[in-house]
Amino acid sequence: MVGSVGNGLVDLSAAAGNGVGKGALPMEEEPPARREVVLGRNVHTASFAVKEPEADDEETGEREAAMASVLALYRRSLVERTKHHLGYPYNLDFDYGALSQLQHFSINNLGDPFIESNYGVHSRQFEVGVLDWFARLWELEKNEYWGYITNCGTEGNLHGILVGREVFPDGILYASRESHYSVFKAARMYRMECVKVDTLISGEIDCADFQRNLLLNRDKAAIINVNIGTTVKGAVDDLDLVIKTLEESGFKDRFYIHCDGALFGLMIPFVKKAPKVTFKKPIGSVSVSGHKFVGCPMPCGVQITRLEHINALSSNVEYLASRDATIMGSRNGHAPIFLWYTLNRKGYRGFQKEVQKCLRNAHYLKDRLREAGIGAMLNELSSTVVFERPKDEEFVRRWQLACEGNIAHVVVMPNVTIDKLDYFLNELVEKRAAWYQDGMCQPPCIARDVGQENCLCILHKK
Amino acid sequence: MVGSVGNGLVDLSAAAGNGVGKGALPMEEEPPARREVVLGRNVHTASFAVKEPEADDEETGEREAAMASVLALYRRSLVERTKHHLGYPYNLDFDYGALSQLQHFSINNLGDPFIESNYGVHSRQFEVGVLDWFARLWELEKNEYWGYITNCGTEGNLHGILVGREVFPDGILYASRESHYSVFKAARMYRMECVKVDTLISGEIDCADFQRNLLLNRDKAAIINVNIGTTVKGAVDDLDLVIKTLEESGFKDRFYIHCDGALFGLMIPFVKKAPKVTFKKPIGSVSVSGHKFVGCPMPCGVQITRLEHINALSSNVEYLASRDATIMGSRNGHAPIFLWYTLNRKGYRGFQKEVQKCLRNAHYLKDRLREAGIGAMLNELSSTVVFERPKDEEFVRRWQLACEGNIAHVVVMPNVTIDKLDYFLNELVEKRAAWYQDGMCQPPCIARDVGQENCLCILHKK
Repeated sequence: MVGSVGNGLVDLSAAAGNGVGKGALPMEEEPPARREVVLGRNVHTASFAVKEPEADDEETGEREAAMASVLALYRRSLVERTKHHLGYPYNLDFDYGALSQLQHFSINNLGDPFIESNYGVHSRQFEVGVLDWFARLWELEKNEYWGYITNCGTEGNLHGILVGREVFPDGILYASRESHYSVFKAARMYRMECVKVDTLISGEIDCADFQRNLLLNRDKAAIINVNIGTTVKGAVDDLDLVIKTLEESGFKDRFYIHCDGALFGLMIPFVKKAPKVTFKKPIGSVSVSGHKFVGCPMPCGVQITRLEHINALSSNVEYLASRDATIMGSRNGHAPIFLWYTLNRKGYRGFQKEVQKCLRNAHYLKDRLREAGIGAMLNELSSTVVFERPKDEEFVRRWQLACEGNIAHVVVMPNVTIDKLDYFLNELVEKRAAWYQDGMCQPPCIARDVGQENCLCILHKK
Repeated sequence: MVGSVGNGLVDLSAAAGNGVGKGALPMEEEPPARREVVLGRNVHTASFAVKEPEADDEETGEREAAMASVLALYRRSLVERTKHHLGYPYNLDFDYGALSQLQHFSINNLGDPFIESNYGVHSRQFEVGVLDWFARLWELEKNEYWGYITNCGTEGNLHGILVGREVFPDGILYASRESHYSVFKAARMYRMECVKVDTLISGEIDCADFQRNLLLNRDKAAIINVNIGTTVKGAVDDLDLVIKTLEESGFKDRFYIHCDGALFGLMIPFVKKAPKVTFKKPIGSVSVSGHKFVGCPMPCGVQITRLEHINALSSNVEYLASRDATIMGSRNGHAPIFLWYTLNRKGYRGFQKEVQKCLRNAHYLKDRLREAGIGAMLNELSSTVVFERPKDEEFVRRWQLACEGNIAHVVVMPNVTIDKLDYFLNELVEKRAAWYQDGMCQPPCIARDVGQENCLCILHKK
């Protein structure tokens, strides 16, 4: 399979069934969907092979020179690719020059962040400082929380859902259809029963459907993944309504809520009128990515949960001289320092300013798209602008847009300026005129994805 | 619990039962053991707090200065801690100065390494080059393998065992008692039945006990974790004997073998007389750590498996425009470049030289320990020297020794020179004379851990 993926549009609706849902895991059936999947280019043949050094390489210096040239070329491509990036929620604007002095060290926070292992080259001092900051942000006392810095948002979800399962071993996992795929991966890995709940057009969880499903499964506790910003539409599930629905359905004290705040978990505290994500509500865990809104050279994330839950998960592992309640064993000790550095420099106030800028710029983008006759939607609490998928895959790749079906999105991050948006918009408008000039085909209808009021296809434009 | 951990020896035998083995997971009972666990210092109060910047910080530059001073202090402690490190299998000797130019980029290989996602700032070209190198090392053809660069050895084990479970959903996981704790963590996470198999005194799996257990469970397929270098003793399970035992017990074609080669997976190919780890034998996956023998600023690892198995695990995730068969979603794109850089510089020949040096130096350490009257063991294929646990915990921490019960170990890595070993040995011999000078207590007997022939306690020394 690896070798056979081409460049363009590939229909994988048949292949997509392969191996999925097999095995012993009871999981809801996917509705039969026939969607087009765009796969990138196969990189198997375009890789930089590792070559065995010649015996006299050291003397001639040829090897060093060849490697330096590969790296210089690669660096140039990174500059170009970083410049043309709009689709993924990564803040590419950071300067960690002051930390390059640490790259020489093998920093490893293996095991629990709160208990030193015997390995001394770690950065727990920074990690705990960062965790304290997040616990304060989400209103959990120092002596009541536990957490760690993860490798990515997925690890946070894997951890939160695992904690939920350990608290309620027979619990059913509920997650909206628009939840990140790692939530369903967790269900499969952990052999949990999983119910996919419908969503509203905004992308939020449909609490009416949630209640229907709860009432069908009254006998089993509920483990719920609540999205604080969905991947595609940036929709924020209504946490208060989810809790109300649980209580009204007779689930008082028999539920565990994990909040997947991958991107928006760090933005929402700074959005006026946004519902609050706080441990003063009956939630079990919150996760957020570090490489998204904060920005970091490598993926990382923060996971915060209640200390009382963690005993359900932890076990004593003498080898590390440390309790092990994390998913991974060895853990990247550089990531906490990157996060610590940015949090210290920006502070709550700095993030607030950046969030406001992102929301403003997202509105600008949405307005300009619609002025140009391009259907677009922007959720009130979000900086993710969803719009008609550009027809040309080359254009999609150039701007690194994330696409699903007929829609694409741009996530307006702190590094996305008005200038950059104008550059993108002008190019899109110009190309689009060419794509549709002969009238042979029409821009797609996206009413099903974003609602009629946001669609500007031939049928829905006024 | 977090706040209550002190400095010295703490008896956690009661607490260790907390939450472990609870839940729906059928797992063998731990024998009641009463061992002392050394916990490090609690770092909750010693952390570097994140402080909200003052309004005028930018002008005064005070904040920048304060942060720079924290970092300079931290760097000094890293230098010191790196110098006094012997216990963990990390090669601390690397120079990635040429790569510091890349730290400014947010490099993310999200999803499958062989299929580009739409996110353009990735390093798949390097990742696939590295994977090809390892596939060649373990003798699997380019078009027959699948793999990826993981965050650590644990992720490799989690992946290998998950693949095994997807191939045999009802299979029982067999692993020797001296397997890495992540293997048992996987069993718990994945809700797999798990059987702990006895070990020989060397630390290798006891195939007689393995066979007894197989015969008790003839009706279920077997998923086996084979250790290529155990964590504590560096013992290499006899892969050929494991396969023979399976076949003789009637498990032909009904088994999946994952090889945990965390440290030694990259050393064993270069050890003369060592049994071969190769996909020409009926194994399913091999994992190895990247920050161990290769050396890397942050933890990482390599996972190689058969392409045919991966379909059991993968699912198509349109959002990434990529197939998802990895455990994590976003993946560190810097790690592959670090690995690529070192593999290119050293090549097979370079690693061979380093392996030989490590084995020589390990022999030197073992011999010198025994000359000094200190019980010590070194497995033939290993560079892990196991010896009597130093009495003083301060000394253990100073040299960052990994300990278990009465034994400690030093893992001789490429950065561990004869000079460093002499420095350590002289200090140990001197301190030890002081610990035991008054005759009030004796060095511990370690015959149970390493065999009578390797113990030099008062009972066993000749």
